[in-house]
Amino acid sequence: MEYVKNSTKLLLIVLDGLGGLPVKDGKTELEIAKTPNLDRLAKISALGMHIPVDWGITPGSGPGHLGIFGYDPLKHQIGRGILEALGLGLEVKDTDIAIRGNYATAQVQDGKLIIKDRRAGRISTEENIRITQKLSRAVDKIGDVKVLLSPGMEHRLAVVLRFPYTLPEGSDQIPDTDPQREGLPPIIPYGKNQNSEMVAKVVREFLSVAEEVLKDEPKANYLLLRGFSQKPKMESFSERFGLKACAIATYPMYKGLASLVGMEVLKFEGNTIKDQIKALKDAWKDYDYFFFHVKKTDSYGEDGNWKGKVEVIEEFDSLLPEFLELNPHVLVITGDHSTPSVLKGHSWHPVPVLLYSPYVLGGISDRFTERECLRGELGIFPAVKIINLMLAHSLRLAKYGA
Amino acid sequence: MEYVKNSTKLLLIVLDGLGGLPVKDGKTELEIAKTPNLDRLAKISALGMHIPVDWGITPGSGPGHLGIFGYDPLKHQIGRGILEALGLGLEVKDTDIAIRGNYATAQVQDGKLIIKDRRAGRISTEENIRITQKLSRAVDKIGDVKVLLSPGMEHRLAVVLRFPYTLPEGSDQIPDTDPQREGLPPIIPYGKNQNSEMVAKVVREFLSVAEEVLKDEPKANYLLLRGFSQKPKMESFSERFGLKACAIATYPMYKGLASLVGMEVLKFEGNTIKDQIKALKDAWKDYDYFFFHVKKTDSYGEDGNWKGKVEVIEEFDSLLPEFLELNPHVLVITGDHSTPSVLKGHSWHPVPVLLYSPYVLGGISDRFTERECLRGELGIFPAVKIINLMLAHSLRLAKYGA
Repeated sequence: MEYVKNSTKLLLIVLDGLGGLPVKDGKTELEIAKTPNLDRLAKISALGMHIPVDWGITPGSGPGHLGIFGYDPLKHQIGRGILEALGLGLEVKDTDIAIRGNYATAQVQDGKLIIKDRRAGRISTEENIRITQKLSRAVDKIGDVKVLLSPGMEHRLAVVLRFPYTLPEGSDQIPDTDPQREGLPPIIPYGKNQNSEMVAKVVREFLSVAEEVLKDEPKANYLLLRGFSQKPKMESFSERFGLKACAIATYPMYKGLASLVGMEVLKFEGNTIKDQIKALKDAWKDYDYFFFHVKKTDSYGEDGNWKGKVEVIEEFDSLLPEFLELNPHVLVITGDHSTPSVLKGHSWHPVPVLLYSPYVLGGISDRFTERECLRGELGIFPAVKIINLMLAHSLRLAKYGA
Repeated sequence: MEYVKNSTKLLLIVLDGLGGLPVKDGKTELEIAKTPNLDRLAKISALGMHIPVDWGITPGSGPGHLGIFGYDPLKHQIGRGILEALGLGLEVKDTDIAIRGNYATAQVQDGKLIIKDRRAGRISTEENIRITQKLSRAVDKIGDVKVLLSPGMEHRLAVVLRFPYTLPEGSDQIPDTDPQREGLPPIIPYGKNQNSEMVAKVVREFLSVAEEVLKDEPKANYLLLRGFSQKPKMESFSERFGLKACAIATYPMYKGLASLVGMEVLKFEGNTIKDQIKALKDAWKDYDYFFFHVKKTDSYGEDGNWKGKVEVIEEFDSLLPEFLELNPHVLVITGDHSTPSVLKGHSWHPVPVLLYSPYVLGGISDRFTERECLRGELGIFPAVKIINLMLAHSLRLAKYGA
């Protein structure tokens, strides 16, 4: 594909976990919500449903977003350590190994160290913060490798080892240290190749310091490491699509995913949708493509709280005129996956898509709901094609062939 | 894809050759049929159309079923000999070479044996049975290789050569002996590689015994062999999808196809849909996945008898409550391909699919017909994705990525 440069503005709004299933009187959250602004927009837009990864496949946040960014999630796999680090607010660079850590309880038995509790009795998040801070203070470097830690929920944490040089490919080929079953000794990390053995050496040193620092903790006296991973090699958004892109998100995971594909992550005050809109307006003249992420649709879906999800949709609807005032040339509103409240989690169901542009048929659907999107002019199509549609409707794609 | 084990029950009902075209007043067989039970189910199910192999491609029974079983029919090709053997009720193992045979009339002309009639004047099926039995009695073994024969319609038969060991790959690389035109000598079978030459040697011996046995037959005095094939290497259904599967079918071909992918083929008395339902009920607690095959929709379609096809659909509809009483977690009703009565044969048209599960939108379609399925929430999709949808709706697929 060949790109044409122009001055159009492309706005992608992701209402996380948007799609749903019937929750009351056979209606979904989108059908129950009162959305006069979205209704009006739906009548003049192109609607459809996207399939995030494949039929029947429930995506995590990583694959879900990669798809709508235009990166095939089956080709671009993001390591678990990277996702954990991004989710807990750590930056990840080409020099880094990112790891999912968790505190565990170890004890010596018959002269051998074994893992007694792989989750350290699920210590409280507060305990975790205290212990992680203690560990951070004690070990900020192993030789010239920086150690970055960020506590998660309960016993979980993210670890980033930042080397002073870009790591060669394969440097993350290190097996998990978690023996997967209690009563077994932890696995000593080793490299499956020469590059990763260089990293494993640092990991072993880090673990031995950590063991010393944690030794007097009653429960969290040991650290298990899983999902060693490097930043995936991906063409940046601007190289790939010729778009200067930015991200306006409030949660670390989504900022992190945007930064992985080379979007600039905007800093702004506050964390409401209104605060995000202010940041969007401030940045409007400086970028071509804007990724605007709304988290709470997913959060309420995960909680099984359909009323909460309906309220977020209605809140978003009330703010829709502010987006339209910016006059985006192409506006797409969709989700990264469905999170039906009845399933209390992500699902495999196709996700509603609305594409607003002067160059659509329109006049087909009356509202922006799952059932109305099914009747829409975009049909059911793979998420990874959304970027093509956005580029096409902004007249940024050159003709293919003569 | 990673699978989760649970105790859900998945039921796939294949109404063979289900899809149709208008036969009267612009209505298809499904539209003409009175189907109150299917209508009721359609209203609360997810509907769509599957494409068995590819747009415009008319599948045989083999590719049609492989697709809905979740095996890409373009990747997994089943040899003609295997299909013939399965269709005529012969089992096929890793030790076997399966062959399509047909009786022919040969005669010596200018001192050379030539084929005078490639179909032995299309002898009657009764004649075929008599001759095949004679041949069976005369040659049950070639050395330590067992010879299994099964007569088909008119001049056709299936031959299985069962070796005392698993055959290495490529053992079926033997060209057809049929010269394709009358007046030419038969082709002497030879192996295109070392492994298949071992087999070809046995084939030559078998043919020379057969020539001797048949020599006094007025028409069927010769045997032509085509479609030499080995059992295709396929991951079994349980390895591939984590499902303990069984098949409830009455025709040898469909039992054979199910057994190729490792489904257990249930034995039961009788051959009506009611008999099959009894077998289904008896086996309900013992399996995860049930393949239930109804043949007659296809048979009447092939005969161009649309009234007969309508009646089978109505008979199935009247029995639908018995399936629903079992409370399957996921029920799919579809066909392996379309067999429109107006075409008197298989066709390339997309095939109606109904998926019943609590986790669907529903409320979109009023009946289970081609036109109503086209409006459905599943859209038009490849047959090979049906298994993904069944696994997803039974909550047996793990999330992809974090």
